[in-house]
Amino acid sequence: MEKEIRKIDIVSGGVTAPAGFLAGAASAAIKHKGRRDVAVVYSAVPASAAGVFTLNRVKAAPVQLTMGRVAAGKAQAVVVNSGNANACNGAQGMKDALAMAAEAAGVLNIPEEQVLVASTGVIGKKMPMKRVLPGVREAAGRVFAGGGPLAARAIMTTDTYPKEFAVRFKLGGRPVTVGGMAKGSGMIHPDMATLLCFITTDAAVTPGCLDRCLKYAVDRSFNMITVDGDTSTNDTVLILANGTAGNAEIAEENDDYFLFREALLRVCTKLAVDVARDGEGATKLIEVEVRNAATETAARLAARAVAGSSLVKTAVFGRDANWGRVICAAGYSGADFDPERVDIFLGEEQVARDGASLEFSEERALEILGRDTVKIILDFKSGPHGATAWGCDLSYDYVKINADYRT
Amino acid sequence: MEKEIRKIDIVSGGVTAPAGFLAGAASAAIKHKGRRDVAVVYSAVPASAAGVFTLNRVKAAPVQLTMGRVAAGKAQAVVVNSGNANACNGAQGMKDALAMAAEAAGVLNIPEEQVLVASTGVIGKKMPMKRVLPGVREAAGRVFAGGGPLAARAIMTTDTYPKEFAVRFKLGGRPVTVGGMAKGSGMIHPDMATLLCFITTDAAVTPGCLDRCLKYAVDRSFNMITVDGDTSTNDTVLILANGTAGNAEIAEENDDYFLFREALLRVCTKLAVDVARDGEGATKLIEVEVRNAATETAARLAARAVAGSSLVKTAVFGRDANWGRVICAAGYSGADFDPERVDIFLGEEQVARDGASLEFSEERALEILGRDTVKIILDFKSGPHGATAWGCDLSYDYVKINADYRT
Repeated sequence: MEKEIRKIDIVSGGVTAPAGFLAGAASAAIKHKGRRDVAVVYSAVPASAAGVFTLNRVKAAPVQLTMGRVAAGKAQAVVVNSGNANACNGAQGMKDALAMAAEAAGVLNIPEEQVLVASTGVIGKKMPMKRVLPGVREAAGRVFAGGGPLAARAIMTTDTYPKEFAVRFKLGGRPVTVGGMAKGSGMIHPDMATLLCFITTDAAVTPGCLDRCLKYAVDRSFNMITVDGDTSTNDTVLILANGTAGNAEIAEENDDYFLFREALLRVCTKLAVDVARDGEGATKLIEVEVRNAATETAARLAARAVAGSSLVKTAVFGRDANWGRVICAAGYSGADFDPERVDIFLGEEQVARDGASLEFSEERALEILGRDTVKIILDFKSGPHGATAWGCDLSYDYVKINADYRT
Repeated sequence: MEKEIRKIDIVSGGVTAPAGFLAGAASAAIKHKGRRDVAVVYSAVPASAAGVFTLNRVKAAPVQLTMGRVAAGKAQAVVVNSGNANACNGAQGMKDALAMAAEAAGVLNIPEEQVLVASTGVIGKKMPMKRVLPGVREAAGRVFAGGGPLAARAIMTTDTYPKEFAVRFKLGGRPVTVGGMAKGSGMIHPDMATLLCFITTDAAVTPGCLDRCLKYAVDRSFNMITVDGDTSTNDTVLILANGTAGNAEIAEENDDYFLFREALLRVCTKLAVDVARDGEGATKLIEVEVRNAATETAARLAARAVAGSSLVKTAVFGRDANWGRVICAAGYSGADFDPERVDIFLGEEQVARDGASLEFSEERALEILGRDTVKIILDFKSGPHGATAWGCDLSYDYVKINADYRT
């Protein structure tokens, strides 16, 4: 029995994989005509809610609104739009975010305080509310149990594919599902919450436990990815737990708590890695693992600095086994380590020992750097701690995409 | 008289513009054949010396050697090579750096402790000493009073043009000159000293005063530029003051001290801005000025974050007036400011007021973003402090240069 409880299976779907969640999408022509750009996720019953938000001092209106509402620990729906961030729009921005929530609440017949809002897209442009409100109305009116994939697609901006993932496990014999969707491929950087991600679960969890589990998972997933070092004004991760699975409510740090947290971490990690892999212009995922660091902080700082280094990213793009840039990035990361003890590996090929060059096969390195996922390992040989960060290479297309984004 | 004293004139030349300094260069085929890659700067008499060095935990052997020697406050020559950083080469790296200094000392007939060493280029490759030592010998043997321009060219890596600058002013009626040269166009980031820069002056200054003046100037120049967010293992700024001008030695914070410091700041600022403008792949200089901040720290943090933002840099490259990315970068910079009070200008065109969009002429913005120098101003309207940072745009060529640098 104990063994069965520990099992976590991958299942298909995203935010509508858990019981009692519906989603819908509609086209409001916010930035582009003819593609869906508004999504609504709805729980059939009121749910526990928690969120993690950008640490940018400049917070978009929907972030400010949603932070306030999530603090109450309960919500029943989320309205999301792509194409406009509704950031830096003054008092009008908050009015528009409130109107979006009210519109969805009216259609779904729930209190408007139970509706959260998130937006992503260009900063400093007024929301085209004449088109947005009908879009919200349509999306809310069309929510259905198979709507997850539509919603995952509607929240995309420069993403090249939708990102959703779900897992299932048992709590007290009852199947519990955690599902999620995410978007984001530029303006992504660790330590500042992240992009947009919406997670749903039919588990029964108190708001307090949900909040702690979410922070734990985000810290090890979305806070360990970087695409370009820029942190958005709109980063938001939300989770709703509606209790439909009928498990004994998770209200303390018991076995159920830890299993649920682990399942949540898997969903967050899969979505975060997908976001890194789909970074603007990326051709490869870069996975950086720091092993045997003296502290977890050192491991995290170094892993993220290497994954975020423009020079490492361009070297990986060009399949250049320039490990000097790897140790250099670790060196300026603020991490405490001894440069003369560091071993470095590209995939399974060791390229440096004790901080100095090793003879290695350039041919093998070229093959490794040509893979879809390029793994870089730094062994600090000075303690028991480790961390993994994810990023992507820096290509011509990153420049192309961002040189003319707004127009 | 007081007025004349305050006058600082630009003069031609670089490190050999001050009296009593000679320079030479030679080709050692370290990375490329047929171009000069070793330089020696020599003072005819022993000089006061000071330096600022990279804060990267991984420090190249010549940085370690030179930090120790500069601590004594005296030096008479500097040996520099491009093409190889002599970083991450274990014990051999220090042996090689020592040998380079000894070789120059022998030729110049000065104590080897009086010779400083700096290297720039690829990390983790052994120095080709069989070629380097003859190069050092030749460069040291050929020092001459007109050698500054040759030296400035020999220290270049991916720089597209040599960087030198000099100014002249009077101290107690005697003409005093400060000259300098710098290199560096990638792996450049503030707060970590910087790239390579060598400054000479015929002023008489105590090592203590020289050190304080250098730190002041570097903090407002090289520490305010960014190209790609990466901080080198080799960043070094050195100054030698040989007293040949015959002024009363500057030994305390008197009028002469402040005038000398101002002249030094001008040289450092000119060289730093040149380095930013010549950033790898750059087509434009970006100058970011933060005005009316509550603290100097806030102004500095925000200015540097905006100048360093990949999204701002690509937008400038693409001539896209995306001011939202500007306020976003200020927001995550750690600077304390009120987003709802910020005014933003592109050149003379105001694009945002109180943190929200203004109607502005896209045509004018396009013209401003097409200039060689793009000025971005953020007015925090909350205090008396300001700061300026410099960077460059991010182009396809940055990726091209760095995707295949090592090979």
